[in-house]
Formats: sequence, structure tokens, C-alpha cells
Amino acid sequence: MSKEGITSRSESFADWYTDLVVRAGLADYSPVRGCMVIKPHGYAMWELIQQGLDTMFKETGHVNACFPLMIPKSFFSKEAQHVEGFAKECAVVTHYRLKNDGEGGVTVDPEAKLEEELILRPTSETIIWDTYRNWIQSYRDLPILVNQWANIIRWERRTRLFLRTTEFLWQEGHTAHATYDEAEHEARRMLEVYRRFAEDWLAVPVLTGVKSEGEKFAGADHTYCIEALVQDKRAIQAGTSHHLGQNFAKAFDVKYLSKEGQLEYVYATSWGVSTRLIGTLIMAHSDDKGLICPPRVAPIQVVILPMGRDEETRARTYGAADQLASELKAIAWSGPDLSELEYDVPELMHPLGSRIRVHVDKREKESPGFKFNDWELKGACLRVELGPRDLESSSCVVVRRDRGEKVTVSLSEASAYISEQLNAMQGDLYTAALARQHENTFWVDTWDEFEKIFEGEGGAGFVMAHWDGTQETEDIISEKTKATIRCIPFEPLREGDDQPGTCILTGKPSKQRVAFAKAY
Amino acid sequence: MSKEGITSRSESFADWYTDLVVRAGLADYSPVRGCMVIKPHGYAMWELIQQGLDTMFKETGHVNACFPLMIPKSFFSKEAQHVEGFAKECAVVTHYRLKNDGEGGVTVDPEAKLEEELILRPTSETIIWDTYRNWIQSYRDLPILVNQWANIIRWERRTRLFLRTTEFLWQEGHTAHATYDEAEHEARRMLEVYRRFAEDWLAVPVLTGVKSEGEKFAGADHTYCIEALVQDKRAIQAGTSHHLGQNFAKAFDVKYLSKEGQLEYVYATSWGVSTRLIGTLIMAHSDDKGLICPPRVAPIQVVILPMGRDEETRARTYGAADQLASELKAIAWSGPDLSELEYDVPELMHPLGSRIRVHVDKREKESPGFKFNDWELKGACLRVELGPRDLESSSCVVVRRDRGEKVTVSLSEASAYISEQLNAMQGDLYTAALARQHENTFWVDTWDEFEKIFEGEGGAGFVMAHWDGTQETEDIISEKTKATIRCIPFEPLREGDDQPGTCILTGKPSKQRVAFAKAY
Repeated sequence: MSKEGITSRSESFADWYTDLVVRAGLADYSPVRGCMVIKPHGYAMWELIQQGLDTMFKETGHVNACFPLMIPKSFFSKEAQHVEGFAKECAVVTHYRLKNDGEGGVTVDPEAKLEEELILRPTSETIIWDTYRNWIQSYRDLPILVNQWANIIRWERRTRLFLRTTEFLWQEGHTAHATYDEAEHEARRMLEVYRRFAEDWLAVPVLTGVKSEGEKFAGADHTYCIEALVQDKRAIQAGTSHHLGQNFAKAFDVKYLSKEGQLEYVYATSWGVSTRLIGTLIMAHSDDKGLICPPRVAPIQVVILPMGRDEETRARTYGAADQLASELKAIAWSGPDLSELEYDVPELMHPLGSRIRVHVDKREKESPGFKFNDWELKGACLRVELGPRDLESSSCVVVRRDRGEKVTVSLSEASAYISEQLNAMQGDLYTAALARQHENTFWVDTWDEFEKIFEGEGGAGFVMAHWDGTQETEDIISEKTKATIRCIPFEPLREGDDQPGTCILTGKPSKQRVAFAKAY
Repeated sequence: MSKEGITSRSESFADWYTDLVVRAGLADYSPVRGCMVIKPHGYAMWELIQQGLDTMFKETGHVNACFPLMIPKSFFSKEAQHVEGFAKECAVVTHYRLKNDGEGGVTVDPEAKLEEELILRPTSETIIWDTYRNWIQSYRDLPILVNQWANIIRWERRTRLFLRTTEFLWQEGHTAHATYDEAEHEARRMLEVYRRFAEDWLAVPVLTGVKSEGEKFAGADHTYCIEALVQDKRAIQAGTSHHLGQNFAKAFDVKYLSKEGQLEYVYATSWGVSTRLIGTLIMAHSDDKGLICPPRVAPIQVVILPMGRDEETRARTYGAADQLASELKAIAWSGPDLSELEYDVPELMHPLGSRIRVHVDKREKESPGFKFNDWELKGACLRVELGPRDLESSSCVVVRRDRGEKVTVSLSEASAYISEQLNAMQGDLYTAALARQHENTFWVDTWDEFEKIFEGEGGAGFVMAHWDGTQETEDIISEKTKATIRCIPFEPLREGDDQPGTCILTGKPSKQRVAFAKAY
């Protein structure tokens, strides 16, 4: 471990990540295998993510609801493709009562066995479509635009805090539509909301595209996704949006009476992002000192450190710190204007406003050096140092977490400067991440080169290569190189990407280049 | 059923309640026994409740976190009193994998049996105190002021939407303190937050007090509660706050190094309210037409109904409706000033602000009469009717949900009038509920009178009577009358309530009158 208390990225990216998450107080492992405790600092990030996304969902016409956690086992047998393809590593409830074991403890009451086992939701399509059957009679009941914030259980073998845990938090949108086109529009629109959120809030650029048949959601006609690249050059699937066609409507017998008086099956979409987003942004931006967090989702945007060796001095610096804090708290900060970015969801073009989140650190037993390290670890975006000498010159020293330079600013201009720097940091993190993505995207045309680039343990960036479109080839490539098709991009990354070529492995015809990467 | 589509209260209060909840689109039963689906309109109420409470929790220094849903069975054996007293109707996870059954369905994989069963949290003291052991070393780590918003599973036999369901949503605060007094202050302070929320937001007056030994939380030293009375004169326990003493710290070995260098066990509190609050406010305020909702937690505070038989007329009324809607949306409504109320949490004295929630109903296929009934059922606080004749006189008709009188208001004054009426309605609902509570509180001194008042099926209000303080007497009273001790009030409801007397049943000495009622 480095002197800051966490492993360096060059030593071990995996250990660096876990050290950072644990030491910064974001999350920790729990006594329950594969489950995490999301600690207050990490949960505060999730709350900001929720607020941002929830506002976007509501601005696009969605409402929230809540469906049962426990789903009858038989529901999972109804949609054949869903059964076949869906991971079956689910938690199963079989009993509903404990009893005293006569020795001061409890035991499961064998008498209280359920007739039909209940499955803890690994996703909620089945229970929701069973419910929609009662909600939908005619075209006037459509569309249904519902979202749910919920906990999800998938029994994972290899877990990693935030990225893959047995229990995690997510949102799942489940919409019902009269026509294929409307459902298609919804699936694409929500992917665009996710892209906007990833880029605009998390400062993480993403590829958008469609999943291959092998990688799509079981039960979907097709799956759209956003794919991010993080510092170890691995990809992370950060969000998905599925066009489910009429599959679930047919499985759960959900029909509507059309304007023309015909009974028709309903079209569906579902879409979700999870606490995985937190892992993504940590891996995208942070450094060996700890968390670097985009201001929009930073629980503490500004930490002010008033300093002084004696009580009289502290009285003055504390006063100035509190004064600056209250100035900052009065500022409605909404982040940089990103209106030059092109998104298909114009209703979201107005950034959401909030007050600047500021904390004054008055711990007296800790040294300034300790506090500097502590706030670097925890990812406060800006550090403001306020010592007696600064106060004499009516100034303070401002340090941006991602830059590290000390800038002296007069106190009268400090709040305006800080607000500007938060804007700048939000934009700069995105620009830096985008540059890294560009540097780590490669165009490869031979199998030798392809195999070579994916040699070794680490990630290798996005590799744009031709593929013959078959599941078989996809499987062989993944087996040989551990690289998978992350998506078939909507837009060519480079001119010609959408033109035909020959498959990197088989030499058979290929319609376009697709994005390969090793993924989390 | 009445012509409005729901059973009247006089016919059957229980059927009226269920009809209202289902028909107003608040919640519905699910295919999973005892579990409900919270529908969008009901969930919107929960979101407003969450926002209000969460802001109060944060203003009193709390932060949110997230602990695992699944708790190892052995954890429940650690706190003896907790084991003994806690309801054991819990969902038990025994397996972690499904497999294809070879016939197109799925079955539980018998190979995938857990070594130790996992219990879905019926409450989280055990898992949280197991975690706190790692968070707490010295007095500098205290206090810990953490809250969690979560789903809870308790296998209930008799369920009623919102009031008692197998799965429900709640928040649970879990705090850790260095001293008994600090924990005691916290437990009382959070009860005061609940009282304020119930009265100020839900417009439901509550009794506050301490639970008898028989009714307290298993594992607590003592339990405080807020108790509401609803229209059928039954009581509802609307929130509890527990002083847990050192019980969980001892069970999970959580000690801290004091300033004096001594290892001491940590003191604890826990406190919670749930989706039960929604049931409480429905039963407190609503009528035979449907939901009456206090403006602070009403998803739709104002519904505007522009009317017109032809397109040209509608173009004009729709325009005026949209204009009024945008005026209202610009108003930062924070509700009436209730600063004359006395609460022990002065930091919450500033009511929270939000925009007026307004909806313009442009459904053209439905008649005005249908729409009036529909919005009465769904509990829009104010209905604004805007027809061509109203427009000619530049006015509109405003109808308050709880009053029903039609008031003509000029359009130029409409938004100010509406904002005022929302204030008035919030206050009037509270006043009416308080008057009903007063009318239905009785002072009884003989067993004959006590038995008589609780005869029959229905509720009978709060009965203030003397009790000898023993569990035995409490049990006999409850068996004979179905009435239970709701609380031992902090403050005498009437002069002399806190003076000694003789027990209503046994004639033995009693310290003070306690509040009896039949409860949900």
C-alpha cells in the first residue's frame, strides 16, 4: 500500500479499487456472502444519482410504483426464452416461520413450508406483466410508463463492491405500448436518457449501440446499451434498455382493445441502471490518492479547512469559513451548460439546479496534512484552506481535487471562483475521460493482431473489428481472447465502420465493425 | 356499493377502505399472498412522505445508508429478549439456484442448498449492530446517526392494504451513542419528529407516550410511540422510537474507548415509520366519495378541468387552463405557518417549500360529471372548473375537496386564492381530526362502563383509565374487551390523568391513567 493508505493503480488496479471503496467509506463487505453495506458516503452518491435520474424519468412522463420482491416460481416458467436464457442463480424462499430451538436460539419451522417457492426478484418483468394484465383493457390505458426503484438479488459467484454483488440497488422501467414503433421509440429514448446521464452527470463518455444475440437480455427482441471504458481499459456495461416486443404480453396474456375494436397483444420495454454506476465513475476518474468525483454527484463539493494553532486564531478562521460556507450554500449551482451536446431528449436540456454542497471541517485533533489526505481520499471536489496568513490578506487557497494546484483567491471572489471551478471540473473530467476513450480505441483487421492486443490479464480498450454476425464466432472469439462484443454501435466511430468487410476470425462477410472489449 | 363506486363508511368501514384504496389507484393486492402492489398514485404519496421525513432526518443530523436484506439465521439468536419476543413469521431463504425442469419450466436446484439459512429482514437491528462493531472503536466515532429506507418482510396472516402487509416499505433509524442520556434524547427527539410529521404534514393529531412492557419492542429498554385515532374510532400505531439501551451492543460486542480510556458498551436507539402512514391518513380524513388528502402529501393538489362542447371553445378554455396551471406551478407553496405549535425540534420550524402540483385534465371522451367523481375519488385537493361561461366573466369555479362548496373566483385572483385555500385545507383537516379525537376520548372509572364501551365490533375511541401496571392485568383486559394499552401518555390529556388512582379491573393502586383503544 502507498502511504495514502491505498494500493496504487499500477500495483494492482483491482486492489486499488477495493481499497478506495472501503477506505473512502463508500461501501464494505457484509457478513452475508456477496452482499455489501453501502455506507453513508457511498449512499449519498446513490441519492444524488437517484435524484438526477428520477427527475429525468419524470420529465419524460414516467411515474414510480412498487411491485413485490417475492415472485412465485411458476412465473419464471411462462416466458420460454426468459427461462432459458436467464441466469438461474436466484435466492429461493421456501419457509415462512422460525421457532425457538429450545436452546436460546431459533430454527426454521419445518411445518411452515410454502406450497410454491418464492423467488427474490432478479428482475421484475414477470410479476409486473402479470399485474399489467389487470391494468390494461383498451388503447386508452396505454401507454403505461412506470419505473421502480428497488433492491435486486442475483446469486453471484465472484463479487466486487458496486460492480457485481448478490444484492444491489437499481431502477427498472417497465413500459407498455400499443405499437411496435412506440415501444421502439421508448427503448431508444431511455437509452438516450442514460447516455445523457452518464456523460452529463457522471462525466463518463459511453458507446451506445445494440447487443449481439448472445449478449442480449433473455426475453428481449433486442437490447440497447451504454458501454463505458475505465482506466484499466476494461469496458463496463453501465445501462441497458430492452425492446421486449410482445414476448411478455403473450406469456402473461396481456391484450388491449384497439381503436379499431381488435384485441391485440401489448408491446413492452424495460430499462435499468444500478449501483454499478458508482463503481463505473470511481474507476473512470479516481487516482492513487482516492476518489475523484464529478461535482454533480459529489456528496461534498467543497470542503473548507479553517486552521489556527490557538483558540483566538481559530475563532477568526472559523468565522471566515462559516461565512464562506453560507455564501456557497446560497448559490444555486446547476453545473456547466452542455447545450452544445446533441441529445434526442430535448426536454432534458435544462440542467437541474441544487445548492452547493459544502462542509466545514473543524476537527481540531487532526493535522492539516491528515485532513488534506482524508478529503482527497473521500473525493471532495474542491478544498479551501483558510489559515491566519490567508485571512490577513483576505484570501484563501483553493485546490481542485483533479488538478492539485494551489490557487490563491481573494475571499470576496471566492464563492464565484468556486462555483466556476465546479463547472470547469465537471467539464474537464468528461473531456479527460473522452480523450482516454479515444486513445484506447483501436481498429484491428487481422486475427493475429486481435489476439495479441487482448493478450495478458488486463483490459485493452475498445477494439473495432469485423464479425460475421454468428453466435458461434462470437463464442469462439470470447473463449480465445476473453473479449466480448460490447455493442454494435449506432453510429460509426470512424468513417467506414458501418461499411461491410470480412470477419476477423472466419473471413466471412461482415456488415459492419463492432466494439470488442474485455468487460467487468 | 354506492353510485360513486365505493362502499359507504356506514355500510362497512373495512370495505369502504379497501374499495377506496383500490378504486383510487393507490394500491392493489398482488398474486403473492399478503403482498401489495403500490400503484403510481399511492407511490406518489409515499414519495412525498419520504421527501418530507428525509429532509427532517437530515436537518437533525442523520445520513442514509443501506444494509443487506438477507440476515444469517444465527444473528437472531444473539439477543435473547429480541428472539423471545419478536414475531417469528419471517421469510426464510434456503436455496440459491433454480434449474430447468426439463419440461419448459424451472425447479429449485436441490444441490444449491445454503449451509445457513438467510432471513429476509423483519427489522435490521441485528445486521446493523453486527456492522457497527467494525465502525466503532472510540468515542470519536460516536454518535452514529444512520437511517435506512428499505423493504421489510413479516409473514402476516391477516393483511390489509398499507396497514398490514407481508412486504412493506419503511425507514428505520439506527443510532449509536456514548451515553444513556444521549440515546434517550435521540429516542425522544425522533418521536417528536414523527409527531410533527403526523400533525404538520399528514394533518393527523397523535397521542405520544411510552408503551407498556407488553406492547414494547422486543429488545428495547422502552418504546415510545405516536398513536392516531381514525374515523371508525380505532387507534393506529403510526410510528415508534425505541431506546435499546446496551442490549444490542452486548449481543454483538460493540464497545468504545471512552475519553477516560475505559472500554464501554454503546447505547442504541431505533425508530421507524412505514407505508402504514398512508393507510392512517386515508382512514383519518377521507369520505364516501373517496380520498381526502392533506395538501402537503397530495400528488395532485389542484386539478383544472377546462370544458367546452366544440373545438373552438375548448381552444379557449384549454388556453386559460394552461395559463393558470403555469401560474400555479411557479408558486413556491410551503403550507400554513404552524409556528404556534410547540415542538421540541426547533430546527424544523421552517416549513419546507415546493411548487404547487397541478394537473390539467383534457380528457375529451369523459363527461364533466365523470371527471368530478374521478378526482373526488382520487383526492385532488382543489378542483377548478373552467367552462366557456366562466371564461366570459374571466372567472373560474373552485371547489375544495373537503368542503364541496362551489366558489367563483376571478381568474386574475385565482392563483392567490388557490394557494390560500391549500393552506386553509391543510389546517382545517388537522383541526377537524383533532376535534374528532377530542370527541372520542373518554374517561372511565368502572369496569362495567369500560366493558360496555368496548362492546361490539367497532372501535370506541381512546379510553383513559387506571391500570395497576402489571402485564397480567393488561392481558386479561385485552382478552375480555379486545382493547389494548396504546400508550402511557407523556402529558396528561386532562388535569389529574397523571395522578394515582385504582385499577379499572383489579382495584389495585395505579400510578396514572393510560390510553386504551381497539387498534389496527
